[in-house]
Amino acid sequence: MAAYTVTFCPSGKSASVAPETTVLEAAAAAGVPLHAPCGGQGRCGKCAVQIAAGVDEVSPAEAAVFSSGELAEGWRLACQARVLGDAEVTVPASSLVAEHRILVDGVGREIVAQPNVRKVALRLPAPTVDDQRADLDRVLDALGGEVLPPRHLAVLQSLPEVLRSSEYKVTAVVAGESLLGLEAGDSSDSAYGMAIDIGTTTVVAYLCHLPTGRVLAVVSELNPQGQYGEDVISRLQLAASGEEGMSRLTGAAAEVVNKLIARAARDAGVPAEEIYEVAVVGNTCMTHLLLGVPPLGLGAVPFLPSFRDARTVRAADLGIAINPEGLLFVVPNIGGFVGADTVGVMLAGELDRAAGVILAVDIGTNGEIAVARDGELYACSTAAGPAFEGARISCGMRAAAGAIDELTIDHDVRYHVLGEVAPLGLCGSGLVDAVAELVKAGVVTEAGRMRRAEEVSDLPEKVKRRLVENEGGIEFVLAWPGETDGERAVCLTAGDIRQAQLAKGAIYAGMTLMLAEVGAGPGEMDRLLLAGAFGNYIRPESAIAIGLIPAPAHDRVESVGNAAGVGARLALLSVAERRRAEEIARRTKHVELAELEGFYDQFADAMILRPLPAES
Amino acid sequence: MAAYTVTFCPSGKSASVAPETTVLEAAAAAGVPLHAPCGGQGRCGKCAVQIAAGVDEVSPAEAAVFSSGELAEGWRLACQARVLGDAEVTVPASSLVAEHRILVDGVGREIVAQPNVRKVALRLPAPTVDDQRADLDRVLDALGGEVLPPRHLAVLQSLPEVLRSSEYKVTAVVAGESLLGLEAGDSSDSAYGMAIDIGTTTVVAYLCHLPTGRVLAVVSELNPQGQYGEDVISRLQLAASGEEGMSRLTGAAAEVVNKLIARAARDAGVPAEEIYEVAVVGNTCMTHLLLGVPPLGLGAVPFLPSFRDARTVRAADLGIAINPEGLLFVVPNIGGFVGADTVGVMLAGELDRAAGVILAVDIGTNGEIAVARDGELYACSTAAGPAFEGARISCGMRAAAGAIDELTIDHDVRYHVLGEVAPLGLCGSGLVDAVAELVKAGVVTEAGRMRRAEEVSDLPEKVKRRLVENEGGIEFVLAWPGETDGERAVCLTAGDIRQAQLAKGAIYAGMTLMLAEVGAGPGEMDRLLLAGAFGNYIRPESAIAIGLIPAPAHDRVESVGNAAGVGARLALLSVAERRRAEEIARRTKHVELAELEGFYDQFADAMILRPLPAES
Repeated sequence: MAAYTVTFCPSGKSASVAPETTVLEAAAAAGVPLHAPCGGQGRCGKCAVQIAAGVDEVSPAEAAVFSSGELAEGWRLACQARVLGDAEVTVPASSLVAEHRILVDGVGREIVAQPNVRKVALRLPAPTVDDQRADLDRVLDALGGEVLPPRHLAVLQSLPEVLRSSEYKVTAVVAGESLLGLEAGDSSDSAYGMAIDIGTTTVVAYLCHLPTGRVLAVVSELNPQGQYGEDVISRLQLAASGEEGMSRLTGAAAEVVNKLIARAARDAGVPAEEIYEVAVVGNTCMTHLLLGVPPLGLGAVPFLPSFRDARTVRAADLGIAINPEGLLFVVPNIGGFVGADTVGVMLAGELDRAAGVILAVDIGTNGEIAVARDGELYACSTAAGPAFEGARISCGMRAAAGAIDELTIDHDVRYHVLGEVAPLGLCGSGLVDAVAELVKAGVVTEAGRMRRAEEVSDLPEKVKRRLVENEGGIEFVLAWPGETDGERAVCLTAGDIRQAQLAKGAIYAGMTLMLAEVGAGPGEMDRLLLAGAFGNYIRPESAIAIGLIPAPAHDRVESVGNAAGVGARLALLSVAERRRAEEIARRTKHVELAELEGFYDQFADAMILRPLPAES
Repeated sequence: MAAYTVTFCPSGKSASVAPETTVLEAAAAAGVPLHAPCGGQGRCGKCAVQIAAGVDEVSPAEAAVFSSGELAEGWRLACQARVLGDAEVTVPASSLVAEHRILVDGVGREIVAQPNVRKVALRLPAPTVDDQRADLDRVLDALGGEVLPPRHLAVLQSLPEVLRSSEYKVTAVVAGESLLGLEAGDSSDSAYGMAIDIGTTTVVAYLCHLPTGRVLAVVSELNPQGQYGEDVISRLQLAASGEEGMSRLTGAAAEVVNKLIARAARDAGVPAEEIYEVAVVGNTCMTHLLLGVPPLGLGAVPFLPSFRDARTVRAADLGIAINPEGLLFVVPNIGGFVGADTVGVMLAGELDRAAGVILAVDIGTNGEIAVARDGELYACSTAAGPAFEGARISCGMRAAAGAIDELTIDHDVRYHVLGEVAPLGLCGSGLVDAVAELVKAGVVTEAGRMRRAEEVSDLPEKVKRRLVENEGGIEFVLAWPGETDGERAVCLTAGDIRQAQLAKGAIYAGMTLMLAEVGAGPGEMDRLLLAGAFGNYIRPESAIAIGLIPAPAHDRVESVGNAAGVGARLALLSVAERRRAEEIARRTKHVELAELEGFYDQFADAMILRPLPAES
């Protein structure tokens, strides 16, 4: 049997095929991946190519899709045209299936772009006496018959007009398994999404181009719910007080999300109505408040959420200003206060597939800890409190410009300030450094007591005179008023040391108890992932010196940045990662630390300021 | 092995069972159908019974469901209690599964109540340290794990408060596969639905009690879209004129539906928020206008709808005032103008399962005809026009009080008036009688010409003087002004005869062409179903005399009332019937009469006023 050579431009790839082979089959043989969502039935017009000679006559399906001018230019549907001789086929980029690989920063993961929301440009055959399919069926057929009708009536209401005004050249917006919208013309490249990490204190948002996963803008804001209480407990109380309290908290969440969307869209020059999905992580309380679901079960023992699984809702139902049909996806939570943000960290760090023992710690307003041993997963939240975010520390502040983030003491105090400006306060990593250096210098005892100047007479003079006493008690001056360009010094008080001890004790105890859940001792971890801004700036040697993280971890620490936010981006950009997040949430056992035997002893023992575990 | 006798009260049924058998299993053995939606896991509390002795100790699951007072009264869960001796079990009605059979009038069909929306009363175990399931999971688990989470966020938002305020004794509203709502306490008997037939001229609504299928109210109203044109064509034009036109038509549809719901609810003493679903039939144009979907494809050849399959939407999205989470279900359409109403007729008449050749004709503003031959299904709409509903007939009116519905001519004209009042006009069946009697008397020729008085000199005087001539032409007086209690006589004009001929010709031609589709001649039908008000009042002998229905049908005519409305009720009350409606719509081939060869000849031939088919 004769064989013909079909060459595809611009790639130059070719295949030798039998007569009557379709160009679509020839392309597959040549390794040229053409779009064919309708399964080669000539219905969607996605496999349009240009062919001058070597193929059969134009089919009725092609005559319905192309204008006579286009036919004269040699436009054909690859699924319809059959090879009758050697042929050269020009493939436009729009007909190629492009597999975009995305490198996600922080954790260095590479994924294939496979977003839940995708756009497909279609050239539909116009109705004829022989083709009396209903408008909706015409669209769904072209998508290959696997896409369900729109869930929301407005989409169907707009469909007849969009089809006719565009002469049946349209772009279908598909979300999951359903049609989400239909737009006139080819708008397939204009598809954007937001990944948002709603923290108790800070909200961070990423604007992404869905087809490629490119991050176009990163923006953040303080959570305006802070006006109703800096911690989760006070917000839970307001939420339980009735509808008015809930609506204030939910309104504040929508407000900050809208602010971030508007800013990111402006920065990136993207219209907000081209944003089709928002993927959200946050702790259990934050996701409940965003969705307007009163977290009544989180207020008392046994702490239980009102929902656990992932949720997809219309963004407009929450007043979120993206495309009117756009969706909001909330990553599932694990249980108690351990929420979607922890799932995000575990997803980003691939705890579900890691070999050996891997521990991930996300220190924010609460400290969440996850542990994995060869696929066995546990997670808990600690009562660490927001000390490492600067709260409850007299000169504490977040890791922002003006924050002392590194500090050493030898002949005097030396420090580094974020943003290279005059110091305003102390962030988490600066606090850990300061406590570690003060213990090393002997200013603070291992039990956490701050010594008086007369007890440390052998210290360098410049250090010693920083120990000042006033009516409030004793404190150590890190930066004098002259250095700060203000009237106030940056100090560390005896009370601040106590707060740091409580926070680090809770985290250390949590880590050792979680390791015990998988049968490992405090030193037996293969990797320790530190997530969050704190994890990014912290100096492991200081954290080890004060017993915040186990001493044996010194060569196994990895800072993974805002891993919760990375998890939100993964869920936005890949349905496979989204399914994986759901699986992680289902598989992870929620541990209530306070119910574990020995928790209070461990906690008390972990308050001591020295490397842990103590050598036996 | 010992066997114990378990007797169930009040039915007195009993079973002999082995020790350790659960009371639920014993009930099944005795033929006492107990509720067990959670599958006997002790989670839903639906199988509550009272037992004094002969069973084991109370289980933890039961202690969680019942108060100590209830336990003291002997309340147990049948799925938990195990038989340890002879026992007497008292079964409250609420724990019994009642299979309600519903007799649907008109077509005399009996179905099992199996509504899409159902309510299940649940007694949920309250959370404990050992049972930290999320609120939503607690509810879904009790429903047996087969029910999906709510689609609409508001349901989840209200759930935490409903659970706690009711102390976990709630009623779940389930629609299809999803949770539709959660109500405090046991409201399982308060579940209502509406079945609505939206005709071009008249809208009829039935308020039904969903668990039993009982019809509590039947109400009807003129379709207020009539102000924008009495026929479908003028409404299509307004719909195509733009958003304003569409919103007027959709608003008018919602207005009449809301009016009917409010009236039916008031008549039956049912709160509108206890109505959870509306099932709708109507022709393709009417269902599009109700849903706010512009029927742009119906305005020109090839007449095509914008959607074909069944649709379920939130009633609130259309401004329909039932329960805020309530649904509106639209029965699927077949194609072109042949809509959900025809599917309703076919479902009511069981054309999909009938043996032999069965023809169903629904004469409303349009005439729709369906034919079945051993499961092969076809349907068409005719251009009959609304003559038989009284339109375009000079003294025409609907079949309401004051309408002449029966008429004979011998020595004089004698007639019957609906409502036993003075005659106001002529309805469809009166028109058919009048034409038939006038032909028989020789006043009208078989070709449809009205003779002058001098041509019919042998007629009785009282009849002859009814033929009057004026500037408008010749007309026949059916009721003199004195009889009508008014100044106007009820007359039949030469033009009226022409309208009747056109309408009956279209229907007769349609019937014969549809029979031909299944290979049957005009006389070869086993049953002829006449639907609609017209079908209810018509005298078959008159219809045959003027060739409206085939002469051989004389002993095979069945009047089936508002079969379209019956179809809507079947879809409301039974998911099995709803699935069947979808299958009928998919299987039925839509026939475009005007495209059939010989249509115009058949139509012209069928205009003659004599029994048809003509004897050969």
